[in-house]
Amino acid sequence: MRISNFFIQTLREDPIGAQIISHKLMLRAGMICNVHHGVYTWLPLGLRVLQKIEKIIIEEQNRIGCSQVLMPTTQPASLWEKSGRYDGYGMEMLRIKDRHGRELIYGPTHEEIATDMAARFIKSYRQLPVIFYQIGWKFRDEIRPRFGVMRGREFLMKDGYSFDVDVAGALNSYQKVFFSYLRIFRRLGLRAVPVRANTGAIGGNLSHEFHIMAEVGESELFYDKAFDEIDIENVSFDEVERIYTAADEKHDASACEVPGDRLVTARGVEVGHVFYFGDKYSKAMNFAVTGCDGQPFFPQMGSYGIGVSRLVAAIIEASHDEHGIVWPEAVSPFSVVIITAKNDDAKVSQIAEELYERLLGSGVDVLLDDRAERVGSKFSDMDLIGITSQIVVGTSALAGTLEWKDRKTGERSLLSFDEVVEKAVGRA
Amino acid sequence: MRISNFFIQTLREDPIGAQIISHKLMLRAGMICNVHHGVYTWLPLGLRVLQKIEKIIIEEQNRIGCSQVLMPTTQPASLWEKSGRYDGYGMEMLRIKDRHGRELIYGPTHEEIATDMAARFIKSYRQLPVIFYQIGWKFRDEIRPRFGVMRGREFLMKDGYSFDVDVAGALNSYQKVFFSYLRIFRRLGLRAVPVRANTGAIGGNLSHEFHIMAEVGESELFYDKAFDEIDIENVSFDEVERIYTAADEKHDASACEVPGDRLVTARGVEVGHVFYFGDKYSKAMNFAVTGCDGQPFFPQMGSYGIGVSRLVAAIIEASHDEHGIVWPEAVSPFSVVIITAKNDDAKVSQIAEELYERLLGSGVDVLLDDRAERVGSKFSDMDLIGITSQIVVGTSALAGTLEWKDRKTGERSLLSFDEVVEKAVGRA
Repeated sequence: MRISNFFIQTLREDPIGAQIISHKLMLRAGMICNVHHGVYTWLPLGLRVLQKIEKIIIEEQNRIGCSQVLMPTTQPASLWEKSGRYDGYGMEMLRIKDRHGRELIYGPTHEEIATDMAARFIKSYRQLPVIFYQIGWKFRDEIRPRFGVMRGREFLMKDGYSFDVDVAGALNSYQKVFFSYLRIFRRLGLRAVPVRANTGAIGGNLSHEFHIMAEVGESELFYDKAFDEIDIENVSFDEVERIYTAADEKHDASACEVPGDRLVTARGVEVGHVFYFGDKYSKAMNFAVTGCDGQPFFPQMGSYGIGVSRLVAAIIEASHDEHGIVWPEAVSPFSVVIITAKNDDAKVSQIAEELYERLLGSGVDVLLDDRAERVGSKFSDMDLIGITSQIVVGTSALAGTLEWKDRKTGERSLLSFDEVVEKAVGRA
Repeated sequence: MRISNFFIQTLREDPIGAQIISHKLMLRAGMICNVHHGVYTWLPLGLRVLQKIEKIIIEEQNRIGCSQVLMPTTQPASLWEKSGRYDGYGMEMLRIKDRHGRELIYGPTHEEIATDMAARFIKSYRQLPVIFYQIGWKFRDEIRPRFGVMRGREFLMKDGYSFDVDVAGALNSYQKVFFSYLRIFRRLGLRAVPVRANTGAIGGNLSHEFHIMAEVGESELFYDKAFDEIDIENVSFDEVERIYTAADEKHDASACEVPGDRLVTARGVEVGHVFYFGDKYSKAMNFAVTGCDGQPFFPQMGSYGIGVSRLVAAIIEASHDEHGIVWPEAVSPFSVVIITAKNDDAKVSQIAEELYERLLGSGVDVLLDDRAERVGSKFSDMDLIGITSQIVVGTSALAGTLEWKDRKTGERSLLSFDEVVEKAVGRA
């Protein structure tokens, strides 16, 4: 992408009103723009990160056999009356009347819609198990939206719903999604710690929250650092469960058996949540299926969520420095940026152009920053927006030398044109 | 994708209540599921088509230098009061009050948000021209939603907004998008005819609608068949404009100079609309920019829309037969499907598996239908859902022969395993 075709507007100063670092950096980097209370437009830079996260989630969810759907944002109130949640959900639910006076809501979650959809199509135990998921916009009318997209009102969520024949099947689905989530967070460059959680408004029997460590986190977490060492591809659910993790309300210092030197204490931002709740919704919504014995039964359900837009902020909280954002490679808005450091020299520009075309042709996700601005200001902008690798094309390029800078370590190496191509292609 | 991981539910009979063929076929093929009046869940099969359309739109819009953003679905009423459209928009606008009594709407279009966003970032003529676009969900509270996603209430739209220094610039942006739209429709396998249109609620000076020919169309179209012969890559806007095209209300048979044998008459479904409306919104919303003379001016604007979810239905209207949907190659939910025609034979199944793995490994977008169902019923299902190419793996596979069936022509050819791979990879 040429920067001339890619709208970027950066701010030198911290914007007024933003309290946490991710909110400040997202505004300064021009990732989002506030529209009304707790509701944002995603500008090109922010949208690219969002799309990269989505892609990883889709790959990992499809890998475990989940089926992607897309449910509407608006829902009929009648389905929530059926499940018994309409009156109890409270002020966070955005309630709407359409032109005919019918009561709708802007969905804060989709258990009702998913159960209703399953009931239309699933009639026999032979059609189970199934896990549906979607990535879609939801609305929760928070009384005090704040911290940018960390606690916004209109937000992007990945939510999934599993339907199984029996408890064992449901727990198997739960564990499959549990590991899929661990894998998603790892691929995003994050260490997410699962903790046992209360089930709250969703209801049910078993639940885990996934937390990313960041100072701004809502809860205090305690976990055995053995968790940091597990190989998620070669560990059972029970083994993970045996490793001590707890959020503040569940942690009891006097009863905790983890030795002090192994107990990590940190603040956590919740980025995912999984629930198993048996037949709570299938029963309430009368979703019965014929079993292998010919008798009807209510499928066992679970629901699973990842806060996709919130993740963008959480990743920044976990990965930034004094110059700006430091994107993990997997979600960097571009994998490399070429910075022309000498725009008034036609030959230097030409080398940058050639490199750009070459990388583009090799499938590298590359941004070309050929703006006619002061080079110092271009460097600051690129450090601020945090693309993983920067390639600087300056006067030395005329002698065949380009500079490769790693955004995270600040390490610079001088490479030939071909070496730069090889390195960039190797990362694509 | 294995069909066991891809939720498909087909219906043998036409569903009650669906009046037009695309609606019937989308329900029968299991592409969508009705949630409430004029609002649908997109099931895996439908979602894939939607995503393929989105991808083509994104590629073509990026190619002409548009910047992708994502604006929220909810908007503050205050912006519509500023533009003067809040009171006039009528019952089609879904109006909402949040918990603090603030008036919101579910956006039916985004001129206000786009203008407001531009006003925050664009201060100088040097930052122009710019074209923002998004692909997002909108809501129009139609009094009588019908025809499935053809005339739904919650619908997916690509909308774009251009900002220019002067009229000439704005017309240039308009024409760039105009040709981008022609290219998008061509890539989707459609012949879309642009006709001069009234500007309606958006307001302004110049406007074209893009229509696809289908019996179910809302308007009668008249056009010179010379249009079908133009090469959109080598024709000017003026040349296109000189070719006669008109919708019913603008067509005057007595004044039309196209000879009868060249005048095509057909019903058209509107799938795109482009507007140029000068400074109507920039002025109303006080979006002023400093010109090269240091004086402030109001940018010239245009807005551009494609009905993405409606397109899915429009494509089906334009491309189906008595057996079901016939997807144009570019939007086929998968590019090929492998049908095992002899599931109880382990060796046949193994050949199908090998072919599937081989195609997957070569980047082919392939579905494996290895369901243990009657083969006749599998063939009917696959004709109904309309994947462009079917590969049948039956007993003859043991002797090295597979069958390749073209969904559109029904043409079958017997090919070796390697020939099938070559053909499928060639299309990927």
